[in-house]
Amino acid sequence: MPQAPDDLRALVEDYLEGLELWPQLHGQADSVRYSLTVGGKRVRPVICLATAEAAGADAESALAAGCALELVHTFSLVHDDLPALDDDEERRGQPSTWKRYGEAVGILAGDALLAEAFRLATSYETPHIARELAQATLGMIGGQYLDITGTAPDEVTLHRLKTGCLFAATVGLGLWVAGVPEAEQRAWRAFGDELGLLFQIVDDILDADGYVVTHGVDGARRLADEAAERARARLAEVAADTSVLRDIVDGLAVRTA
Amino acid sequence: MPQAPDDLRALVEDYLEGLELWPQLHGQADSVRYSLTVGGKRVRPVICLATAEAAGADAESALAAGCALELVHTFSLVHDDLPALDDDEERRGQPSTWKRYGEAVGILAGDALLAEAFRLATSYETPHIARELAQATLGMIGGQYLDITGTAPDEVTLHRLKTGCLFAATVGLGLWVAGVPEAEQRAWRAFGDELGLLFQIVDDILDADGYVVTHGVDGARRLADEAAERARARLAEVAADTSVLRDIVDGLAVRTA
Repeated sequence: MPQAPDDLRALVEDYLEGLELWPQLHGQADSVRYSLTVGGKRVRPVICLATAEAAGADAESALAAGCALELVHTFSLVHDDLPALDDDEERRGQPSTWKRYGEAVGILAGDALLAEAFRLATSYETPHIARELAQATLGMIGGQYLDITGTAPDEVTLHRLKTGCLFAATVGLGLWVAGVPEAEQRAWRAFGDELGLLFQIVDDILDADGYVVTHGVDGARRLADEAAERARARLAEVAADTSVLRDIVDGLAVRTA
Repeated sequence: MPQAPDDLRALVEDYLEGLELWPQLHGQADSVRYSLTVGGKRVRPVICLATAEAAGADAESALAAGCALELVHTFSLVHDDLPALDDDEERRGQPSTWKRYGEAVGILAGDALLAEAFRLATSYETPHIARELAQATLGMIGGQYLDITGTAPDEVTLHRLKTGCLFAATVGLGLWVAGVPEAEQRAWRAFGDELGLLFQIVDDILDADGYVVTHGVDGARRLADEAAERARARLAEVAADTSVLRDIVDGLAVRTA
C-alpha cells in the first residue's frame, strides 16, 4: 500500500528536522537550519519519494535524494532574496536569511545548502543521483541569469529553466533511487516535465503574474488544466501503481497556496 | 616516467580552456569562464593529478576531479570578493567577477562554479570523489564563517578549514581516481595535511599576515620548513614513486608568488 502524499511529507519533515549538518560548518549551521525550517510545502521531496515508491523502492530510501532537491530549492531562494538580486526582506512571513543573519552569512548559507545537497546526493553508491542534481542546478542558475538580465528569449524557456529543471529532477532522482534503467525512464520523465509546467502555471495564477499576464486568468487556468491532463496521460503509460503521483497532480492543479 | 609539475599544469590549462560548460547556463557561462581564466597557479589540480599518477593512474584520468577542485577554489574566491564579504574589486590584477559583471551575476557565477564542480566530480562512476569534494567544500565554508564573524577558536583551526580542507581533498580525490582502497590511504592523507599547512604558512609569509603576525617572519619560515620536512617524511612512507609530489613540496616551500 503506497503512502499518501501527507505521509510522505511527514517523512520528509522528520528527516529534515533530524538532519545532521556537516560538523565543520560550525556556527554557519544555524543559518542553514533557519533557511530550511522557514518551511515550504516540500513538494519536490514528496514527488521524489512518491516516484521512487511507485517505481518499486521504499519511500525512505529516497529521503536523502528528495531532501537534496529541497536543499537546492532552498539555496536558490536564499540567494534570490539577497539585496543584489530580489532584495526580499521576508520569506513566508519570516525575515529572509540575509535579513536575519546579515548579507555575508546569507551568501554563505546558500553556498552551504548547495554543498550539503551534494553531500546528501553523494550518499548513494550510484553517481546518477548527484549528477542529475548538478545538471538541474545549472539549468536553474541559467534561468535565474536570464531572468535578472532580462535576456530570456520567451516565458516558456525561462520557466523551463527556473522551475522545470528541478521539477524534472524530482522524478529523475526518484527513478535512479529505484534503479529504473535509463531506457525505461521516458514516460516517467515526460510526466515530470508536465508536472513542472503545471506547478509553474498554477504559481503564476496564485501570484497573478507570468502566464496570467500573457494569457489572462482564464487562459492560464486552461493551460494548467491541459498540463494536468497531459501529466495524467503520461502516468497512465507507466506500468506501475502511480495512484499517489496522480493524487499529487490533482493536488497541484487545485492548490491555493 | 611520471610527468613533471609543469607538464601537469599544461594538461590542466588545456582541460580548463576546452571545458564545455553546461549549455543551460546560457549567458551566465561568460562570467564563469572569466572567473576561471583570471588565472592562478592551478596548484590544487596539479597535486591531484600528481597524486593519481603516483598512485598508479593516468594523470589524464584525474583531470575532471582536479579541475572540480579548481572550480570549488574559484567559487570561494568569487564569493569572498563580493562587497558583503571582502569587498575586493580586483583579483590578480583584473577586475573581480562581481566588479566586472555586477553583484547579482557575481553571486550566480560562484553558484554556477560550485554546481559545475559537482558536475565534473560526478562524471566518475564512484561516488567517493564528489562525496569528498562536498565535505571539503563544507569545511571551507565553515572556515569562511569563522573568519568573517571573528569566532575562530584559533588560527590553526581557521586555516585547517579555510585552506586545509580543500588541500587535503586534492590528495584524497587523486587517491579515489587511482582506486586506492581506503585502508591504504593513511600515509598519503597525512602528507596532504602537511601540504595544506605548508601552503598556508608560505602564503602568510608572502602576505606578511597570519603566521607572520603570530610567530614573526623567522618563526613562520621555520614552521614552513618543518611542515615541508614532515610532508617529505610522509611521502617516504608511501610505497610508490612519489618524486613528482616531492618536487611539488620543494616548489611550494620556496615559492615567491
